[in-house]
Amino acid sequence: MYFKQKELHHFNKASGSNGEILKPHLLDVDTFSQEDFNLTFSIANKMKSIYTNGPKKSPLLRGKTITTLFYEPSTRTRISFESAAKMLSADVINLSVDGSSTKKGESFFDTMLTLQSSNIDLVIIRHNHSGAPYLAAKYLNKTLVINAGDGLHAHPTQALADMFTLAQHMKTLKGKKILIVGDVAHSRVARSNLIALCALGAKPIICGPPNLIPWDLFQNIHNSSSSPFKGIQINTNLDQAIVDVDVVMALRLQSERHAKGALPSLREYANLWQVTSSRLAKASPNVLLMHPGPMNIGVEISQEVAYSTNSVIQEQVSNSIAIRMAILLLMTDQSEALNV
Amino acid sequence: MYFKQKELHHFNKASGSNGEILKPHLLDVDTFSQEDFNLTFSIANKMKSIYTNGPKKSPLLRGKTITTLFYEPSTRTRISFESAAKMLSADVINLSVDGSSTKKGESFFDTMLTLQSSNIDLVIIRHNHSGAPYLAAKYLNKTLVINAGDGLHAHPTQALADMFTLAQHMKTLKGKKILIVGDVAHSRVARSNLIALCALGAKPIICGPPNLIPWDLFQNIHNSSSSPFKGIQINTNLDQAIVDVDVVMALRLQSERHAKGALPSLREYANLWQVTSSRLAKASPNVLLMHPGPMNIGVEISQEVAYSTNSVIQEQVSNSIAIRMAILLLMTDQSEALNV
Amino acid sequence: MYFKQKELHHFNKASGSNGEILKPHLLDVDTFSQEDFNLTFSIANKMKSIYTNGPKKSPLLRGKTITTLFYEPSTRTRISFESAAKMLSADVINLSVDGSSTKKGESFFDTMLTLQSSNIDLVIIRHNHSGAPYLAAKYLNKTLVINAGDGLHAHPTQALADMFTLAQHMKTLKGKKILIVGDVAHSRVARSNLIALCALGAKPIICGPPNLIPWDLFQNIHNSSSSPFKGIQINTNLDQAIVDVDVVMALRLQSERHAKGALPSLREYANLWQVTSSRLAKASPNVLLMHPGPMNIGVEISQEVAYSTNSVIQEQVSNSIAIRMAILLLMTDQSEALNV
Repeated sequence: MYFKQKELHHFNKASGSNGEILKPHLLDVDTFSQEDFNLTFSIANKMKSIYTNGPKKSPLLRGKTITTLFYEPSTRTRISFESAAKMLSADVINLSVDGSSTKKGESFFDTMLTLQSSNIDLVIIRHNHSGAPYLAAKYLNKTLVINAGDGLHAHPTQALADMFTLAQHMKTLKGKKILIVGDVAHSRVARSNLIALCALGAKPIICGPPNLIPWDLFQNIHNSSSSPFKGIQINTNLDQAIVDVDVVMALRLQSERHAKGALPSLREYANLWQVTSSRLAKASPNVLLMHPGPMNIGVEISQEVAYSTNSVIQEQVSNSIAIRMAILLLMTDQSEALNV
Repeated sequence: MYFKQKELHHFNKASGSNGEILKPHLLDVDTFSQEDFNLTFSIANKMKSIYTNGPKKSPLLRGKTITTLFYEPSTRTRISFESAAKMLSADVINLSVDGSSTKKGESFFDTMLTLQSSNIDLVIIRHNHSGAPYLAAKYLNKTLVINAGDGLHAHPTQALADMFTLAQHMKTLKGKKILIVGDVAHSRVARSNLIALCALGAKPIICGPPNLIPWDLFQNIHNSSSSPFKGIQINTNLDQAIVDVDVVMALRLQSERHAKGALPSLREYANLWQVTSSRLAKASPNVLLMHPGPMNIGVEISQEVAYSTNSVIQEQVSNSIAIRMAILLLMTDQSEALNV
Repeated sequence: MYFKQKELHHFNKASGSNGEILKPHLLDVDTFSQEDFNLTFSIANKMKSIYTNGPKKSPLLRGKTITTLFYEPSTRTRISFESAAKMLSADVINLSVDGSSTKKGESFFDTMLTLQSSNIDLVIIRHNHSGAPYLAAKYLNKTLVINAGDGLHAHPTQALADMFTLAQHMKTLKGKKILIVGDVAHSRVARSNLIALCALGAKPIICGPPNLIPWDLFQNIHNSSSSPFKGIQINTNLDQAIVDVDVVMALRLQSERHAKGALPSLREYANLWQVTSSRLAKASPNVLLMHPGPMNIGVEISQEVAYSTNSVIQEQVSNSIAIRMAILLLMTDQSEALNV
């Protein structure tokens, strides 16, 4: 066991069942208790004032070395982590596949050992293969791992940013109807958000073309009480599914991950699944519109909706920095300095 | 109006004609008054002593986050900005197209919003499309924009560095004959320099093959007193044009931007337009030789001339850092700390 | 003469034979005296405690600007230098070929001048052409050069890290049998290590396929007392060569540098030249196993051996940071602050 269990609370300094100290890697949100979410949001709130009011510089992570290791391209996630780390005075070293030793045949495992032997305190990994950060976490005991998106699997800091954004608009998520619409099958953001939403008592509804809904969710095989996906509704008709929902999360159509011929045409996809203002009008009057970005305007979301007053898309971007600052502090045990 | 007008002075905290606060984006030098030039040069002079005498570290931009966003490759401009920002203790985040979300279909506009929502104080943009930084500036109100070269249009900080370099050798530019020779049509450096030279009272002469002289200048359509290009001379014969000039600015032949077949051969180009020592001998005895770099030695400039005592090319590189430090301070209102 | 001679001690502030001040560029270890090695190791030891015990931040290089200029990909070397420099509070600017002006036709020489005119204190160069850092060092007098690997020639900081690692396990290298096995011909690490081993009195043995042993060593033409390679043994039979050795250095098979058809097959190579546990059993009981990384597990080294208790491979990685911190301090004359 290399990451903490839900019952122990993710960021507690508790030991595992075998007595070993568990490292607070952040691989997904399924290890988060309600208390973990609250703690993270509370620190994120303090962080927000640092980077909003400026000067955006706190000494809390001075002397820590953080590496971003990205096997897939990214603007927003890397900026967000790099900003967060630098505002806290950490040293940041960026690695991307193009400049890395993978070209020379080094295994992912050996790259991990190299980082650890280089006394890197924390590595932020984005990888095209689901599970890569888990492999890293399994073997690293000094260097901590943050999953910044692995294949089709998980993107926990994005989910935390999204939940934090919702928490700033709603007292509670209990019983709230949250519609996730689009290319769910290829969205690690959706998967982590579904876990978080279920954990926080929301009622998620999934909507999209049947072949872009994950097979396990579509078959409704998550009825056991221990499943993190228990109770999720599926509705493939957007005009019906959107009625009276409190939140709409539109997802990017990830064409680059599709098998050839997965969709008849972008125009047909837009006709059936685009979040438009006429569709949004059927939702709750104060509906919040979210999108994890980057957006394909005119495909999964209309321009009008994307920049409407219902949209909290820019808040998501902004909150993701506060959340990442909070996570960096919690993982490195520096949050105490804030007297939380 | 998102950038200040010439009559308001670029860096004044004046409000626009509609009463709104104008943001001091730096898009080109056409908004600079004589006072703006002098102020910039005076701060650049102070900066020069910081980075020349060392330790090269001032806390003036501590807590500011600056992003370089380069859609075209660059060594010297990025180094120069990154050095300048880091010497002033800003946090710098580098983005280049290869690692950015443009691959995923995000619009330039959304990338700009993401930067602003990420509380980036200042973005330094180099873009292959003329006008891209203007688009950014139009929509950004918290994040400031510096144009680090846009298409064939403008490169204001290079022009400021060049004028600063001249200012250190000449009391005034009034009436000075400045020859700009080579691929003027594809040179954003030339365009910004011409505006600055006209504003500062110099007498620019343009020389080059007719098809590499911008159409509007070649047709001499800039006779209205309000044109920033008013009074520029054209002379396509280098041996005549160079006689008695005070400054020669050689330009890089930008073959990568040429339509196929634009030039008969590099050898013919060099024969007719290369700045050689025999040609330079026809200029004023103390002629200054400039080149914005990177140079194609043996094409637009001979090796002998490039490294001659007339050359101030290395001073241009060095001064560009001082100028960029000054610009960063002026744009973020930190220049007052210097008691200028 | 732009780098100091062995008899002057590399880091002494001595002047050259013509009276000029010599710059302490670091191009290879052939300029190191025994005293230079000891001094470097002694400072590296102090550095080790900084980055091991944390907070990993010392102000010793505050106000210095360091550029990494990599014409070949690298993970470990760049991380190592960047970590080292940032822990010492230097500002680091990364340049890689893909984003550099070489695309625009600028010469390597002009890139060097640009760095110097930009007041870069130190440039760390990795280049595919042997000798490139020497060319840089020949012309730079303000910016110092570190060779981070040039073609098939030298990689001095890796050799220093390897010698430092050995020094922590053995009182002296005098008379120790050190086996270097594998693709010696394409290994700049091997070449620098051989020079260091000879200088420190060890007895190096080279082993590998005849066509992967450098011609000059294979012909045994280094018998003159002034050769840095004097006294090296060659033995192309690994099972014989490994008997009773104190150290085995396995080298990466650099297939990307091979002429086509250089090897019959990887399987045959592994059969004959892989360091396996049965082969390692023939060496001295406390044999140390080294590899400069990145490893091709299953080619030049077996998995079992790579992660065995004899392996000091991770120590090499870790020590390389301490060595690079030491080198940066020595070259910039900041080591006095440590009261060495």
